[in-house]
Amino acid sequence: MMQQRPTLKELGLATGKKARLRRLLFQNGLSNGTALFLPYDQGLEHGPRDFFANPSAADPRYIIKLAQEGGFNGIVVQIGLAEKFYWDYAGEVPLVLKLNGKTDIPSDAEALSPLHASVEDAVRLGADAVGYTLYVGSPAQERDFAQYRTVRDDARRLGMPLIVWAYPRGAAIEAKGGKDSFYAVDYAARTASELGADIVKVNFPHPDKTAAVHEPYEGQFSSQEAVDAVVRSANRTLVLISGGSRAGDEAMLDKARQSMQAGATGLIFGRNVWQRPHNESLHFVAALRKILDEHPSDPG
Amino acid sequence: MMQQRPTLKELGLATGKKARLRRLLFQNGLSNGTALFLPYDQGLEHGPRDFFANPSAADPRYIIKLAQEGGFNGIVVQIGLAEKFYWDYAGEVPLVLKLNGKTDIPSDAEALSPLHASVEDAVRLGADAVGYTLYVGSPAQERDFAQYRTVRDDARRLGMPLIVWAYPRGAAIEAKGGKDSFYAVDYAARTASELGADIVKVNFPHPDKTAAVHEPYEGQFSSQEAVDAVVRSANRTLVLISGGSRAGDEAMLDKARQSMQAGATGLIFGRNVWQRPHNESLHFVAALRKILDEHPSDPG
Amino acid sequence: MMQQRPTLKELGLATGKKARLRRLLFQNGLSNGTALFLPYDQGLEHGPRDFFANPSAADPRYIIKLAQEGGFNGIVVQIGLAEKFYWDYAGEVPLVLKLNGKTDIPSDAEALSPLHASVEDAVRLGADAVGYTLYVGSPAQERDFAQYRTVRDDARRLGMPLIVWAYPRGAAIEAKGGKDSFYAVDYAARTASELGADIVKVNFPHPDKTAAVHEPYEGQFSSQEAVDAVVRSANRTLVLISGGSRAGDEAMLDKARQSMQAGATGLIFGRNVWQRPHNESLHFVAALRKILDEHPSDPG
Amino acid sequence: MMQQRPTLKELGLATGKKARLRRLLFQNGLSNGTALFLPYDQGLEHGPRDFFANPSAADPRYIIKLAQEGGFNGIVVQIGLAEKFYWDYAGEVPLVLKLNGKTDIPSDAEALSPLHASVEDAVRLGADAVGYTLYVGSPAQERDFAQYRTVRDDARRLGMPLIVWAYPRGAAIEAKGGKDSFYAVDYAARTASELGADIVKVNFPHPDKTAAVHEPYEGQFSSQEAVDAVVRSANRTLVLISGGSRAGDEAMLDKARQSMQAGATGLIFGRNVWQRPHNESLHFVAALRKILDEHPSDPG
Amino acid sequence: MMQQRPTLKELGLATGKKARLRRLLFQNGLSNGTALFLPYDQGLEHGPRDFFANPSAADPRYIIKLAQEGGFNGIVVQIGLAEKFYWDYAGEVPLVLKLNGKTDIPSDAEALSPLHASVEDAVRLGADAVGYTLYVGSPAQERDFAQYRTVRDDARRLGMPLIVWAYPRGAAIEAKGGKDSFYAVDYAARTASELGADIVKVNFPHPDKTAAVHEPYEGQFSSQEAVDAVVRSANRTLVLISGGSRAGDEAMLDKARQSMQAGATGLIFGRNVWQRPHNESLHFVAALRKILDEHPSDPG
Repeated sequence: MMQQRPTLKELGLATGKKARLRRLLFQNGLSNGTALFLPYDQGLEHGPRDFFANPSAADPRYIIKLAQEGGFNGIVVQIGLAEKFYWDYAGEVPLVLKLNGKTDIPSDAEALSPLHASVEDAVRLGADAVGYTLYVGSPAQERDFAQYRTVRDDARRLGMPLIVWAYPRGAAIEAKGGKDSFYAVDYAARTASELGADIVKVNFPHPDKTAAVHEPYEGQFSSQEAVDAVVRSANRTLVLISGGSRAGDEAMLDKARQSMQAGATGLIFGRNVWQRPHNESLHFVAALRKILDEHPSDPG
Repeated sequence: MMQQRPTLKELGLATGKKARLRRLLFQNGLSNGTALFLPYDQGLEHGPRDFFANPSAADPRYIIKLAQEGGFNGIVVQIGLAEKFYWDYAGEVPLVLKLNGKTDIPSDAEALSPLHASVEDAVRLGADAVGYTLYVGSPAQERDFAQYRTVRDDARRLGMPLIVWAYPRGAAIEAKGGKDSFYAVDYAARTASELGADIVKVNFPHPDKTAAVHEPYEGQFSSQEAVDAVVRSANRTLVLISGGSRAGDEAMLDKARQSMQAGATGLIFGRNVWQRPHNESLHFVAALRKILDEHPSDPG
Repeated sequence: MMQQRPTLKELGLATGKKARLRRLLFQNGLSNGTALFLPYDQGLEHGPRDFFANPSAADPRYIIKLAQEGGFNGIVVQIGLAEKFYWDYAGEVPLVLKLNGKTDIPSDAEALSPLHASVEDAVRLGADAVGYTLYVGSPAQERDFAQYRTVRDDARRLGMPLIVWAYPRGAAIEAKGGKDSFYAVDYAARTASELGADIVKVNFPHPDKTAAVHEPYEGQFSSQEAVDAVVRSANRTLVLISGGSRAGDEAMLDKARQSMQAGATGLIFGRNVWQRPHNESLHFVAALRKILDEHPSDPG
Repeated sequence: MMQQRPTLKELGLATGKKARLRRLLFQNGLSNGTALFLPYDQGLEHGPRDFFANPSAADPRYIIKLAQEGGFNGIVVQIGLAEKFYWDYAGEVPLVLKLNGKTDIPSDAEALSPLHASVEDAVRLGADAVGYTLYVGSPAQERDFAQYRTVRDDARRLGMPLIVWAYPRGAAIEAKGGKDSFYAVDYAARTASELGADIVKVNFPHPDKTAAVHEPYEGQFSSQEAVDAVVRSANRTLVLISGGSRAGDEAMLDKARQSMQAGATGLIFGRNVWQRPHNESLHFVAALRKILDEHPSDPG
Repeated sequence: MMQQRPTLKELGLATGKKARLRRLLFQNGLSNGTALFLPYDQGLEHGPRDFFANPSAADPRYIIKLAQEGGFNGIVVQIGLAEKFYWDYAGEVPLVLKLNGKTDIPSDAEALSPLHASVEDAVRLGADAVGYTLYVGSPAQERDFAQYRTVRDDARRLGMPLIVWAYPRGAAIEAKGGKDSFYAVDYAARTASELGADIVKVNFPHPDKTAAVHEPYEGQFSSQEAVDAVVRSANRTLVLISGGSRAGDEAMLDKARQSMQAGATGLIFGRNVWQRPHNESLHFVAALRKILDEHPSDPG
């Protein structure tokens, strides 16, 4: 049985957040309460090496057009691309302004993603949501939480939906099943919820990664049970499942199906979409949309 | 002989703090000057693993209803749950907004609990008190005290009662009897008092943990003598005794009795309450209320 | 021959500071320009263990009454006790609000005493001076000086006398004769003076602690010569000599005599006063007052 | 085939930035959309040792005159020289105020270049652009990004073009081909673009430095292919190729030709210009201008 | 041939700075454009041990009178002495308020001199210039530059001349000839100039300290050539040569002569002046004034 997604009505949202979330979820993409986002900040997070598999993807114009053709609910970019490219497409596809980010060059041991833009920048650029990467478990959590707090507060003040990239990270996570373990993803989802995210983006949980996890996670769980639990841990924070690095299509679609079955609101797939020829991208996106189409929710 | 609790009149309180404390202590729960709080921030502090014993407890709605059914004086949650869930129950059970918190993933060696919300958030959400975790003895005390100071000052300015979770922590504490030793709990209570807490939450002191403590604590003290001393050290800061992790009911009730006998104002029990079936929760709460019922105080 | 204390007239004081200093020195205690202060922040600095020798001393009310009975020029407390207790005695004995403080639990290697209150808090509470602990020589001097500077500036702006607890501290001090050496105390007094303290509190200097001190301090100095030099180094910053931990009465009185002979303005004795039965406390205080009575100065 | 430079029209620029960029690129130097800048901050970055080869170059007046004689599009100096020397030449040659800088004395392991001036200083001094050094890959990236963000935001607010010196730096860069590798320069260019630079200054990429670089960069690339890719990675951020330390003229000119062919907007050469006799400087500059003259672009 | 000092006219000064510099250089001391300053912050920088050679020097009144008798252009003190002593001599001898300083007790490995006063304090106290110690080469340069920048900006805003104590410091300096090497002093002078100092105070350079310096400094230079180069590196930042610790009179006078010959604006001598009997102090000062008298400059 599918777990239920919360309706917008249940979330206790202020006017601005509700208006923008309704626009994102019910007036774009499939307009059925689900979401498919196209993230495009890998040029900062990993560098141009991510574009060698499909050099066209290095051009932001190519990506924005792909988002339009594929019927995405929004694209996610950093401030630089938003300012230099989005003006030309404003209103054609919703913008999610990613507020923080970092290169993958220096050591990740105390991972923290510095802010590059503000919620006010997002308002100015006509964005419908902002994104923030929170490295749950990082030794830098003190600074990360402090930085996050300013974003949460501005988002509240300006009625801007806040999407948290809840990424387990750090030596303590590595020592307990790694960043994709059920334990880690479940804790990450709950943390985003406790700290007031409107939407949380998590990786698909792996219940078989049990090395040294806390006792309750040592049990035998199916991946459906795991993703069900993660969505419950997020409770009234809507869930997006992330595609991560490029993998086999069937495996990805299967995760997408289980996620939606668990009550997730949608998917956020980047490299799996654009690290391939244009036609194949659209073909894969069509398959994702088919899954989302089967999980409509009430506009509330 | 029971030690006396200070009356509200004696505390030198400004109007707003007095009004809110009177509401918490004399218009909720047993309305007799005692308090029973239900803390629910374990999803952040320990992660969802705390909910596996009773999966219903993962749902904030379940907990809020439990607080109502059990006749608690208030529930304690972080900003995220307060914003997404409390609107639906506002006015039905008092809210204590926990202002800081952290995950238990990275090393605790320099424990500090970062702020997630402000006293103004608490005012906006209709809370009757705020909570702050102070890690007494942590090597991070410099930053902790600085952060705490902003909260204390805002609480004063806005007339909001301030409850300090005074938790001994750090290598120096571990080396001197540990975080539950009489020495550590006594010092923690006094620190909260010196730094202007209205209420302090401490663990029950263990006078038998005397390894390497300062000389005066090496003596033979009964647990009643120890908790008496702790409440005296807090002087005009009201004392709540914490339940901590799940333990045997009789032991817990015994500590509750001794605490109230010592002049504590009340109890703050979470996992001992909701890490069990619903009926058992209410049964245990009834036993706690019976103890509180025997220690009324004058509204002053 | 006694060295001369500077008169208030010589100090170049602004109106507010002069008014408050005159009140402290000429309208309280012996009203003869000398001062006897009762410090009561040991509950934070050392914890409740300091009160086991005389359990009554754990109660701030006992201490405030002792200050009145003993004819002290003021009591020194942290913000918490000032807010919860001083309202009941306001105007009966002057208040010195200690603005910073710390527990002695974590390592002292980078000693720094964080702020808990502001000069504005002192004004609000009707205090006649504020106290600040400066750890002269600590590796944390950069942060300490920065924090101190905000206090000095606020004290100037609000006309509030500033008493600096100038405490030598840190590995470099330990390596050069220790925190009570003539070298260390002399440097501490001068530092307070260079940085604009109105009054400096120092420990009595020990000219025999010469291990590895700078050359000029290797000479043979009597303790009178040492304390004379310290008072000269403070020049127009008034000097209070601290009692420190409990010691023999005759030794303490002898230090008091030499200090006043050197031109100190007064004494600040805590544990030596209240770590004994009430009668003995008053008896010891009477002996101290007798010494102060022999060193009056002109109101200027 | 030459890659196309973006026109000003395509950049989505606000009025002030467009006005200033048009002045720099179409009303100075060759006035054909290309740029040749004369950087003069080596006195801070390396110290006066850079001037021993041509002692006249130690005098800022000599350099400013050289910029005029050589037909440069602007000179780049720190605040000190801008304030003490530029007033005398204001309006004669455009000023680029370099906002941050550091000496090369202490360890470069956590390279970060502190701010010395603000965008408002640049406005006050009549500058047409500001420069900021971003050490891409430095372990200090958290603080660097935070500092950079304030500059980007001020530049936006005040309509001031922002030139980012995107310099790969740090142990992780050294371990992956070094700071001039194709991998490092490509990532640096993209980072500047993602973070909203109007212009990025990079070193010429070396595709043969492949030790331990990420897989896509292990291939065989000509230097023309590498610089083409770098300019594409910068997309709508205009590219300046840096001369770096003194090298052979023919090699430098060849790099200049390939850079312009790749769609770079211009060159920024300092030591290669002024670390030689005056006549030779002008002769070398003439050769650079000849290359720029062959790559005009439309004022848009 | 003597190198030329810049005239005030050439410096591009705003009104307030020009007015105050003219007062310092042409209306005090020899009133001929040269300067002789008396620094008196050693009580903080080294402690009272500096006063044992001439105990009278511990008294700020003695020093201020010496400055008057010796015809100095100004005295340099920290905020504490300025507030407690200068009011009595205001207008009789110009005041340079030293804004930062530190004790020499903790390790100097990451030398940084914290601020104790603001440029506004200097205005309030009637000072004609402010002093700032910049530790060129210190591993703490990031924080030092950031702190310095606030001072430079305030000095500009308030028209207050800024004197930078440019002191090479740190392990990297020690490894390259030490803090008095020609390399280090030359770099320090240039750094102050690049960062906008109005006046820079440096030690006399030692061209024979060539161990591991950069190649250009390995050559054979006379001390006159070295000091000539240092003054050129400072260009339009006026140069004061520091006396440093007590040394032989003839050597000091020789350095003074060479410095003035190099185009320095003046001298700043403390311990060499007051660490001797009063008469000898005045005798030595007279010799210094004789040198300055031979290097007048035009009021411009």
